Amino acid sequence: MKSFKIALAQLSPQIGNIEVNVQKMLEQINQAKQQKADLIIFPELSTLGYPAEDLLLRPSLNKRMEQAFKALSAVKDIVLVFGFVHQTEDAQRYNSAAVMKDGQVLGIYNKQNLPNHSVFDEKRYFSEGHQHLIFEYLGHKFGVLICEDVWSLSTAQQISQLNVETILVLNASPYEVGKPQHRVTTMSELAKQLNISLVYVNQVGGQDDLIFDGTSFVINNDGQVALQAPSFKEGSYYVDYDATQKHYKTAEITPVLDTMAEIYQALVMATRDYIQGCGFPGVILGLSGGIDSALTLAIAVDAIGADKVQAVMMPYTYTAQISVEDAAAQAKNMGVTFGIAEINPIVNSFMQTLYPFFGNSPADSTEENLQARTRGTLLMGLSNKFGNLVLSTGNKSELSVGYCTLYGDMVGGYAVLKDVYKTIVFELAKYRNSISETPVIPERVITRPPSAELRPDQKDQDSLPAYDVLDGILYLYIEEELSQDDIIAKGFDKDVVTKVIQLVDRNEYKRRQGAIGPRISSRAFTRERRYPIMNGWIAGV
Amino acid sequence: MKSFKIALAQLSPQIGNIEVNVQKMLEQINQAKQQKADLIIFPELSTLGYPAEDLLLRPSLNKRMEQAFKALSAVKDIVLVFGFVHQTEDAQRYNSAAVMKDGQVLGIYNKQNLPNHSVFDEKRYFSEGHQHLIFEYLGHKFGVLICEDVWSLSTAQQISQLNVETILVLNASPYEVGKPQHRVTTMSELAKQLNISLVYVNQVGGQDDLIFDGTSFVINNDGQVALQAPSFKEGSYYVDYDATQKHYKTAEITPVLDTMAEIYQALVMATRDYIQGCGFPGVILGLSGGIDSALTLAIAVDAIGADKVQAVMMPYTYTAQISVEDAAAQAKNMGVTFGIAEINPIVNSFMQTLYPFFGNSPADSTEENLQARTRGTLLMGLSNKFGNLVLSTGNKSELSVGYCTLYGDMVGGYAVLKDVYKTIVFELAKYRNSISETPVIPERVITRPPSAELRPDQKDQDSLPAYDVLDGILYLYIEEELSQDDIIAKGFDKDVVTKVIQLVDRNEYKRRQGAIGPRISSRAFTRERRYPIMNGWIAGV
Repeated sequence: MKSFKIALAQLSPQIGNIEVNVQKMLEQINQAKQQKADLIIFPELSTLGYPAEDLLLRPSLNKRMEQAFKALSAVKDIVLVFGFVHQTEDAQRYNSAAVMKDGQVLGIYNKQNLPNHSVFDEKRYFSEGHQHLIFEYLGHKFGVLICEDVWSLSTAQQISQLNVETILVLNASPYEVGKPQHRVTTMSELAKQLNISLVYVNQVGGQDDLIFDGTSFVINNDGQVALQAPSFKEGSYYVDYDATQKHYKTAEITPVLDTMAEIYQALVMATRDYIQGCGFPGVILGLSGGIDSALTLAIAVDAIGADKVQAVMMPYTYTAQISVEDAAAQAKNMGVTFGIAEINPIVNSFMQTLYPFFGNSPADSTEENLQARTRGTLLMGLSNKFGNLVLSTGNKSELSVGYCTLYGDMVGGYAVLKDVYKTIVFELAKYRNSISETPVIPERVITRPPSAELRPDQKDQDSLPAYDVLDGILYLYIEEELSQDDIIAKGFDKDVVTKVIQLVDRNEYKRRQGAIGPRISSRAFTRERRYPIMNGWIAGV
Repeated sequence: MKSFKIALAQLSPQIGNIEVNVQKMLEQINQAKQQKADLIIFPELSTLGYPAEDLLLRPSLNKRMEQAFKALSAVKDIVLVFGFVHQTEDAQRYNSAAVMKDGQVLGIYNKQNLPNHSVFDEKRYFSEGHQHLIFEYLGHKFGVLICEDVWSLSTAQQISQLNVETILVLNASPYEVGKPQHRVTTMSELAKQLNISLVYVNQVGGQDDLIFDGTSFVINNDGQVALQAPSFKEGSYYVDYDATQKHYKTAEITPVLDTMAEIYQALVMATRDYIQGCGFPGVILGLSGGIDSALTLAIAVDAIGADKVQAVMMPYTYTAQISVEDAAAQAKNMGVTFGIAEINPIVNSFMQTLYPFFGNSPADSTEENLQARTRGTLLMGLSNKFGNLVLSTGNKSELSVGYCTLYGDMVGGYAVLKDVYKTIVFELAKYRNSISETPVIPERVITRPPSAELRPDQKDQDSLPAYDVLDGILYLYIEEELSQDDIIAKGFDKDVVTKVIQLVDRNEYKRRQGAIGPRISSRAFTRERRYPIMNGWIAGV
């Protein structure tokens, strides 16, 4: 029995780019060897990245996986535990982990519990494994599990009954609010219950709408946390096992983030990773003087730096002077490129062209949408000309009820606040102001009543219930899946609930054409809530 | 042993509207009773409709299913075989069929083979059944299977070994080109092989991007077809079993459609069902003088009638006079409302507003996109004002390589040709002209070289390979999933293949924000080909 050191490689893969991922793994391996680590563990499917979706179906995947194995086979003097796609001769495909030492494969583990709910589609791609993998190294008995496996009590119990001392868990566990701490708390209970230590490594980084927070950890068999890696940060973290004391020595324990700090950092990382992962030189967004675009701007600047961010104010007749002032003030505060483009001539030109068709029809939301679409087209023009990604600025409350214009303010490649309810937008804005010496978002942007400024003296609350009421109903309907009757029974006004639910159901078509955006909730729209557009479900019971 | 009559109720459900679906079933039951049918069989999940997606997760579903059972329990003197969602006390959810007689449930069958590939996600929602259901009625031994079950040879063999004479198969089998006949051919082989008769009922109707063709059939145990219901048409079809001859008597056998007729009718039904299912009074589309919009217009008119279709020509400087002439000629041929809106003033207005930002940057695709987005905004304005659905007119070849403008020509709620390659667009246009006395699409629209007319003398083939070459490569890459190297090995030019594949991979972001459209291929974009946007997969092997 010997003491040993384990490296937890909390990496951000490039989905599908096996060569680059293996290269990154080799760098971490070299670093771990310099640190005298005896074993290095990588996240779930670390060679490919998670989720690779239908790239998993490409016939040449197997050939590429073989190349990855070949490259990793050259590593000496450290045990590797990494994720890969295992295709067997009987044409089964598994989500697997390999244990490799000096080019020899000591064992292969096929994931047994394949999640196929929420954002997961693993049964589309993988067969279920049916065997445990345990191996002895340096006199210590290790077991291997992959992500969902460790959340299955029966699977965890089975492996703990095989005299395993430490379970190595490879993960690609998507972020949602509070999840980093939830994992640690739950796993700490499990470790104590099963009298087993856990080394838990999680993928980090944004991939399309999914955020992986990392927050890898090591927990001793008494439930004590020995290591907690930071969230939203790539890197290798080390822990030492003391064979005499039979426990992992306390290493870096990153303090838990407050909720708003956690969400903010999640959005910043996701936004940065999307921009850089898609190869954009920078971003552009429309700054309206309202809080959504103000917060989006702050996140963009924190993600990639002010020099790569362009903001454009596009006032119209109904834009208040203070909106222009506040937008300009914030752009100046943050040091971004700022321009103003009046849209009156374009909107008038649209109106003139449409006049022969419209005749004397009374004005309605059509005219409001023309303003929004003119702005969208201008942003796309600037994006096309200079290559910057358009960030769209709508929030989850708006998207839920369709209080947004398709091809207008919904224009963009990444919707930073897509999964953030308006009430949380306010909290995040205050949080962001609280962490810098001078507030970056002008106070007035936070305190004025929200308005789309698409008609004279318009306020959001003319069309929608107050945001705390709206968000309360939306949360119960979307995240909690309560029925209309059950939401009313909780004390909300019947007519308001009925109207809100109708709006949610009817606006699926808009959301379906919206940009993707980072998921922070337990029921985000993009991949997770799959509703038909033609939908005959009548709310009620 | 008695002779008997079976009704096959080939119905188009309203997804999620259980009350309406049950009402429709009751109407068919009454009709069947008038026809003296002894048994009526409905499609898979007939009470709910297929696919209901996450509506299946709503907590009140069970309560609603109970109401459906109650309504159907009142039926007397005919055996019902229908689809429903079966939630058991141990919280399992099954895709099930019930056999009901005079209010008594004779048996419940839980689907055993749950497809989770292609467009299917059944493992997201359902548990697998493990038991066969057989029942005797009128001296005849029936078995029940649901859709995928009958494609599993082992499942079909098992039930055939239980002395079953006829398998009743409830289906929601999505259409793709050639599938109606493929089903009959395969099932005829199976019937012969297993010496068993098959009564196969399929859902009909469009649901979002999926088309269900119906084409229900009855096959005798010698492989002979006794009934083949029409495709794309709702209704009940009847077959008589002759107990003396021990076979189903030959009834209506609808002739197989030619490929172009089949595709055309599929698109017409899908378009009509989407428009009506979403409750739009009519449609509007941009008519360019090109073949895509010409074909889309023809389909729209055939779907809902000329009086509900509005076409708008939106010429710009680069629009050829013959384009305007051809658009006007077709609109007149087809008797639709037609208007012309010159877009020069609007585009100029955009250019003037953007000039301070663009400076002397040379013109590029930005300016082309402004034209497309101006048109998109005009169409949306007309849609918003009068309530008609915008049909977008792009084809699969364009969408594959991104030869289309997001928020421009991609604007719309339903993209009729989304899954139709350009080479097939030509065939369909010719087909449509062939079935009316005078051609509805002007001959010149079909014969002139395709052009987006976004710059002077532009031709599609300036930017893209010839469409037969392009479509050949796209088919191999998308439908067949061949690698770049394998496509080149088939004799295509290396540079062309490399460029096309790059374009397909890079334009996932555009497709993700595009309108849904009817699936006719074995690998449509909307729901079936799930690729990441941030995608590091390098083409090659």
